[in-house]
Amino acid sequence: MSDEGFLSQIKWSGDGLVPAIAQDAATGRVLMLAWMTAESLRLSLAEGRAVYWSRSRGRLWRKGEESGHIQRLKEVRLDCDGDALLLSVEQVGGIACHTGRESCFYARFSDGAFTPVDPVLKTAEEIYGGSGDE
Amino acid sequence: MSDEGFLSQIKWSGDGLVPAIAQDAATGRVLMLAWMTAESLRLSLAEGRAVYWSRSRGRLWRKGEESGHIQRLKEVRLDCDGDALLLSVEQVGGIACHTGRESCFYARFSDGAFTPVDPVLKTAEEIYGGSGDE
Repeated sequence: MSDEGFLSQIKWSGDGLVPAIAQDAATGRVLMLAWMTAESLRLSLAEGRAVYWSRSRGRLWRKGEESGHIQRLKEVRLDCDGDALLLSVEQVGGIACHTGRESCFYARFSDGAFTPVDPVLKTAEEIYGGSGDE
Repeated sequence: MSDEGFLSQIKWSGDGLVPAIAQDAATGRVLMLAWMTAESLRLSLAEGRAVYWSRSRGRLWRKGEESGHIQRLKEVRLDCDGDALLLSVEQVGGIACHTGRESCFYARFSDGAFTPVDPVLKTAEEIYGGSGDE
């Protein structure tokens, strides 16, 4: 297998993307789901940190580039169909979500609606200094 | 909010799908990533078990319908962007993957390739009696 033969083990979508789940290596909490291109996966492995493809911004997204909440890669796994990745990460700052919560999955279904149930650990101003968002 | 107003909280893809991560409520292990339609989510909530949309078969897929390895829903969460679901499940039989492994994420990246590292707990014959696969 060539140096980058692993890229051909992955079934990329028509858009060249694959969903990547980030899970906190220490707590087991599922932090977020984002998307990767071949280039972002290659960079993630080379740099030892999660680099996603931002679909909304149409560019590479080095997770934590503005917030400092980077994700150090501990392990990367591929599923049986080859079309989803699972990243085990060390979540710097203990905050994955741009809302200042530990996990992006903070809204729980109850009584017919999804409602936020997790605390905001830091405000956007505290994270970004009022300079924008991630 | 109407009885099914929660469906409008979700940003469905152009194909009417949303990715759903299943996590074992007891162990924290991420078991699989599958897809849901509005109907499959409604049925999941109504029946208290994971019902996905099988993209390969183009039909509803009551997880465990052939294997018996159903997933009882403990909790459903939505992420900050409204475009991914996280299911906390009781995995009946302790096997989520059609290969007979606990998790579909059994291949770990190492030395330039994704390689299976988790044990097969039951063979396909033991699970399906040689009658097919899930």
